[in-house]
Amino acid sequence: MNRAKRLSLSLIGIGPIGASIVKLAHNRKHQWIGAVDIDPQKIGKDLGQVAGLNSKLGVRVESSLEQVLQQKPDLVIHSTVSSLEKVYPQILECVHAGIDVISTTEELAYPYQRHNELAKRLDQQARKNNVTILGTGVNPGFLMDLLPLTLTGPCWEVRHLLVERRIDADLRRGPFQRKIGAGLSIEEFNRTISAGGGHVGLLESLYMVADGLSITIDHVEESIEPVVATAPFTGRLISVDTGKVLGLRQSAQGYSNEHEIISLSFAAFLGLENPADRIVLNGEPMIEMVIPGGIHGDAATAAMVVNSIHNVLAASAGLVTMKDLPVPRAMGRICNH
Amino acid sequence: MNRAKRLSLSLIGIGPIGASIVKLAHNRKHQWIGAVDIDPQKIGKDLGQVAGLNSKLGVRVESSLEQVLQQKPDLVIHSTVSSLEKVYPQILECVHAGIDVISTTEELAYPYQRHNELAKRLDQQARKNNVTILGTGVNPGFLMDLLPLTLTGPCWEVRHLLVERRIDADLRRGPFQRKIGAGLSIEEFNRTISAGGGHVGLLESLYMVADGLSITIDHVEESIEPVVATAPFTGRLISVDTGKVLGLRQSAQGYSNEHEIISLSFAAFLGLENPADRIVLNGEPMIEMVIPGGIHGDAATAAMVVNSIHNVLAASAGLVTMKDLPVPRAMGRICNH
Repeated sequence: MNRAKRLSLSLIGIGPIGASIVKLAHNRKHQWIGAVDIDPQKIGKDLGQVAGLNSKLGVRVESSLEQVLQQKPDLVIHSTVSSLEKVYPQILECVHAGIDVISTTEELAYPYQRHNELAKRLDQQARKNNVTILGTGVNPGFLMDLLPLTLTGPCWEVRHLLVERRIDADLRRGPFQRKIGAGLSIEEFNRTISAGGGHVGLLESLYMVADGLSITIDHVEESIEPVVATAPFTGRLISVDTGKVLGLRQSAQGYSNEHEIISLSFAAFLGLENPADRIVLNGEPMIEMVIPGGIHGDAATAAMVVNSIHNVLAASAGLVTMKDLPVPRAMGRICNH
Repeated sequence: MNRAKRLSLSLIGIGPIGASIVKLAHNRKHQWIGAVDIDPQKIGKDLGQVAGLNSKLGVRVESSLEQVLQQKPDLVIHSTVSSLEKVYPQILECVHAGIDVISTTEELAYPYQRHNELAKRLDQQARKNNVTILGTGVNPGFLMDLLPLTLTGPCWEVRHLLVERRIDADLRRGPFQRKIGAGLSIEEFNRTISAGGGHVGLLESLYMVADGLSITIDHVEESIEPVVATAPFTGRLISVDTGKVLGLRQSAQGYSNEHEIISLSFAAFLGLENPADRIVLNGEPMIEMVIPGGIHGDAATAAMVVNSIHNVLAASAGLVTMKDLPVPRAMGRICNH
C-alpha cells in the first residue's frame, strides 16, 4: 500500500524536532544515511539512540557537515535554530553539495522580507546548483500562512484575515515553556523574552500571505506581552507563583493603505483554556474555521517536513515557500486499524 | 496594488456558473475576448449582458468554438456539463488549439478512476500540445479533496477521513433545487435522481484524496436517498407538501483492506438546519475543522476557477488536478474598506 519511494535522508541538528523527524521518516520507510550535531553528548552515538528510537539505525552522528554531505543523500533535513543568518552557511554548504534541503528555521519559511539579501543569494545559489530549498513547519509554514491561503481559494475577495493560535503551554515540553517565559518574573520577561525571544514566525507568515494574495504591506505592528499569574499555578512540569509569568501573547498586524488587513495572534501560556486554532476570513464569502484543541506544534512541524519531501524533490530549483508547492500530504501512511 | 497580469480569457458555456466567472474575472481586471454558447437566446448578444453585468464587454457570444479559439486567448474557461464524455470533444479542441483550459466539469476534477482512458488521452494530448488542463470547483476541487489533503500536512498518520457538507437548499437557486429533487414525489425521485442525478463529484474527491495519500481503494459504496417532508414546507422559491421530497442525502465510502478509510457525505435539502462544512481527520493528531454556515457552492466554484488561473498558466503541460498545483488564492483582490 505504500507507494512512496524509499529515499535516503541526512539530518542536521538532532534536537526535539529533529528527533521527531527521525522517527516519522523512519516510520515512512525512508532511509537515514547521515546525521550531524554540535553536541559532544550526541556525536559518535547512533542516530536511532539519540533520537529516542527503540532500535539503532546504523548511522553514526558526526560532527562535520562535510562528511555527511559526501554521502550524497537524496535530501538533507535541517533543524537547528530560528535565525536565518545563523543557519545560512549550513544551508549554503548543502546547496553547494547539490542536495535539496528542507529546514525548520522559522525565518526561512518566508525570508524575502526580513532577510531579502540572504534570500536572494540562497535562491540564486540554489538555481545555480539545481537544488530546491524549503523552510517549513506548522507555524510558520501551515497554520498562519498555507492554511489561510488555501481557504481563500473559494473567495471572491478578502477584506481581512485573522488567525489565532491558542496553546495551553502546560501540555508542551520544557524548552517551549522556557521560550515563552513561563516562570519568569515580569522584569526577567521584559529583559529576555520581549527583547527577541518568544515565538518566531509571525512576520514570515504575514508576508507569505500578503505575497500570496498580491497585496503590499505598508507597515506592520508587533507586540509581545507577558501573561501573569493572578493565583499560584501548579503545572505538569513547573509551578508559577502569583505575579510571575505564565507565558505570553504575541501579535502582528499588517496594514495596507492605513487599513489593517492581516492580524496574527499567538497566545501560549500555562493553563490557557480552550486551546484552538482559528481562522476568520472576512471577505466574500465569510469563512470561519476552527480546529478545536489546536494542532500540536512539535509533532506537526516534523510532519510538515516529512510530508513536504516529495514536493521538494519534484520542485524546480530555487528557494521556494509553502505557497509555491502543491499541498503537503501525509503520504504513504494510512493505517487500516 | 494589483500586481496580477491582465490576461485574455474566453468562455465556453454561459450558465449561472459561467456568468459568475465572467463577473469575477472582470472584477479582477482580466480581459474577456471571446465566448461561446449553444443557446440561441444568448448567441449574438454581448457577453456582459448575457452574464448579467451592468456593462457591455464588447464581446459577441458566438455559436462556434473554432471562432473563439482562433482569437488565441491566454486561457479558456469551460463551464458546461458534469459529464467528461460529453465535454471531451470541446476540451480536446482547446488543447489542439494550444490553449490552457480550466473546466468546471465535475468528472474532470479527478478523472483517473471513472474515465481512465479519456483522462490518459487528454493528458497525452495536453503534453503533446504543451497545454495544461485542470478541472476544478468548490466540490469537487476543494471542500472534499484539496482542503482535507491540506489538513493532512501536519499529520503523522491518517486512519480515517470524514467530510460532511450540509446545505440548506432553500438558500440556493432553482436549478440546484431541481438537481437534488426538491418538490418531486418519492417515485419521481427514485426514477430520475437516484438513477444518475444528484450531486456529481463524491467519487472524484474520494479518489483524489486516496491518490494524494498514496492509498489504494479496494471498493467504494455509494448511496443516494430522498429527504421527505414530514410537514408542509414553504420555501423561498417553492413549497413542498408532506410526503414529497425536500432534497437528498448522498454518500460515498472508500474501503482499503476491508476498512472504511474515507467517508464523504453530502446533504442538501430545503430547510436543513445548521448548514456547515466539516472535516474530521482521525489520525495523529485528530483534526476537526468546521466552517459554520458552509461555503456557498456556485460563487465558490467561480472563485476556484478564477483563483486557479495563474497556477494553471505556470504549470507544466498535462492534465493536472488540484493536488498537483500550489494552492489557489484570491489573488490581486484585497479590498481596503
